[in-house]
Amino acid sequence: MTAEGAVQEVEVGLGPRSYSIVIGSGLLPDVGTRLASLGFHGRAAVVTSERIGALYREPIVESLRAAGFHPTAVEFPDGEEHKNLAWLAVLYDRLLEVGLERRSLVVAVGGGVVTDLAGFAAATLLRGLPMALVPTTLVGQVDAAIGGKTGMNHVLGKNLIGAFHQPRVVIADVDVLRTLPRREFIAGLSETIKYGIIRDAALFRHLEERLSEVLELRRDLLVGLVAACCRHKAAVVGDDEREEGGGRMVLNFGHTMGHALEALTDYRRFLHGEAVAIGMVAAARVSRALGRCGSETVGRLERLLKRAGLPTEIPGGMTPTALALAMQTDKKSVDGRIRFVCVEEIGRTSFVELTAQEIVNHL
Amino acid sequence: MTAEGAVQEVEVGLGPRSYSIVIGSGLLPDVGTRLASLGFHGRAAVVTSERIGALYREPIVESLRAAGFHPTAVEFPDGEEHKNLAWLAVLYDRLLEVGLERRSLVVAVGGGVVTDLAGFAAATLLRGLPMALVPTTLVGQVDAAIGGKTGMNHVLGKNLIGAFHQPRVVIADVDVLRTLPRREFIAGLSETIKYGIIRDAALFRHLEERLSEVLELRRDLLVGLVAACCRHKAAVVGDDEREEGGGRMVLNFGHTMGHALEALTDYRRFLHGEAVAIGMVAAARVSRALGRCGSETVGRLERLLKRAGLPTEIPGGMTPTALALAMQTDKKSVDGRIRFVCVEEIGRTSFVELTAQEIVNHL
Repeated sequence: MTAEGAVQEVEVGLGPRSYSIVIGSGLLPDVGTRLASLGFHGRAAVVTSERIGALYREPIVESLRAAGFHPTAVEFPDGEEHKNLAWLAVLYDRLLEVGLERRSLVVAVGGGVVTDLAGFAAATLLRGLPMALVPTTLVGQVDAAIGGKTGMNHVLGKNLIGAFHQPRVVIADVDVLRTLPRREFIAGLSETIKYGIIRDAALFRHLEERLSEVLELRRDLLVGLVAACCRHKAAVVGDDEREEGGGRMVLNFGHTMGHALEALTDYRRFLHGEAVAIGMVAAARVSRALGRCGSETVGRLERLLKRAGLPTEIPGGMTPTALALAMQTDKKSVDGRIRFVCVEEIGRTSFVELTAQEIVNHL
Repeated sequence: MTAEGAVQEVEVGLGPRSYSIVIGSGLLPDVGTRLASLGFHGRAAVVTSERIGALYREPIVESLRAAGFHPTAVEFPDGEEHKNLAWLAVLYDRLLEVGLERRSLVVAVGGGVVTDLAGFAAATLLRGLPMALVPTTLVGQVDAAIGGKTGMNHVLGKNLIGAFHQPRVVIADVDVLRTLPRREFIAGLSETIKYGIIRDAALFRHLEERLSEVLELRRDLLVGLVAACCRHKAAVVGDDEREEGGGRMVLNFGHTMGHALEALTDYRRFLHGEAVAIGMVAAARVSRALGRCGSETVGRLERLLKRAGLPTEIPGGMTPTALALAMQTDKKSVDGRIRFVCVEEIGRTSFVELTAQEIVNHL
């Protein structure tokens, strides 16, 4: 889809808050000069997790220093269980101790947990600091780092606390995917398959045809795949920045059930993309039961997910009642009704208002 | 300035986020119908402090219920020391337990602490809930409730954590000022005097002439005074919603030093308006030392503040070094320099870039 080594840029059009996503290989050593060229200078906090920090803190801090910044690294432990108010408090303390000012830059380097939590801190410290995102997971590069959502989990549900805060730039270096645990890479593929389902039959077919090469981390294919997904997310976000119009709702395909599965398993059993894979199959089955799509659509989705190594079945022992209750607390529900994303055919969706009980009845 | 009993409405023009401030007497019993007429319905959380709740929770909850809402009251303790992350966590828990959904309304009833903290919770729960503000203090009615600033204190400084989140409506009933502790009412006058200094020589003169009647809480004068201040704040905020252009900076007159005084006394010794009164006199003296204004301007300001019963002198024992250090952590400082608001004459200001040390040198 693109020549090896080529850098692709995707513009997220949000008026005065527009920004670029830069996708390529070997981008990390130039992070500092790229940020300086955007007009930033002075203090910068590099926020990352321990695992990611061990791999990339030094090159990024060095790159910032070489470009004239005064960088400080701030780390917190890996894992979704740290995306909460307690760790936010630690992050606030450390960022304020560094002496950040209103124009200081927060550079978040990591997966969705880092970019969500660092993003929330950047959104709310001094009522909003500029931030740059360097996503180091596939799900981060194609989804979490784009669109300005930041957030934390609450015991009552995932991402129940959050804010919209657009980054000034996103730098997605596909080379970092080589150090990503295999299971996390595969979980990220779940979101790329989602873009195929909801908006892009050609992308879905491309994944069906080239999946084995993607799984071998071929650089040119990864740059092309990440860029294609970013273009889709940018288009959706550009039309509905704050999830008000409903356009952004389409991204929720597979997520109503996915979030419920994650909540019911205390965010421990499934990676987000794995829960979404199960949720997408469930959503396709509900779509078929409602007469929205045919069995071949459900079948193609299931087969591609399985070939990628993703789960597709709701775990035994999880009762419909438990699932329904978990879906009811979804923050997108209105007056107890959920705007459910159905698939009509690969690449095309529709919405239907359902109660949580109606959703599980159609599984 | 207005006929007794008349309701005044001030529009805050912020494009799609525009809203009205309704100022009058006897407005509380109609809060429910007013909010219903704006299109809200369903669940509503009335967030208030214990003291304010004891006075106004019942009438407001009743008014909401009568208008068809399903209201729940949520209270937290009074006092600036509760405007922090720990009480935010409690507030999150309670609001989520109530089962608020994305279109549920948060009705914040109280002073700046309640509206700041409830506002921050509304800004960040489910990535943003609609909110109505019912300010019950003078400083809330003329300042804190207008402009969309929400926030919390941190041990390193006041309001270091926050978000911009515009209310859908502000309902300012001057009758509630009758139950406000005298000291708090007087502290609120400090902000009304500030509007006179920075934008409105006629308002300043009006306060000089009618101060004793204002201190007697004459309803018509209060409605006129609150409306005049709201119009000024609305004009400033409308030009610079997120404090980016610098226009909003003028509201910071007296606040650079005021915030430092509050921080150095652990937010315990001074009410906000009292610290601002001292800060305004300090700012006027710095202005005079820089040749920006004459002694008569400093004198008129000092006399009016004193007649209102406000402090005007920095407490003995507070060293210039301590003040300078406290001002340096101000979130509005950029590269160690502070955009200081000077007074040129009553009703007109100017800006000058100073270091914290230069400010204390000119005191």
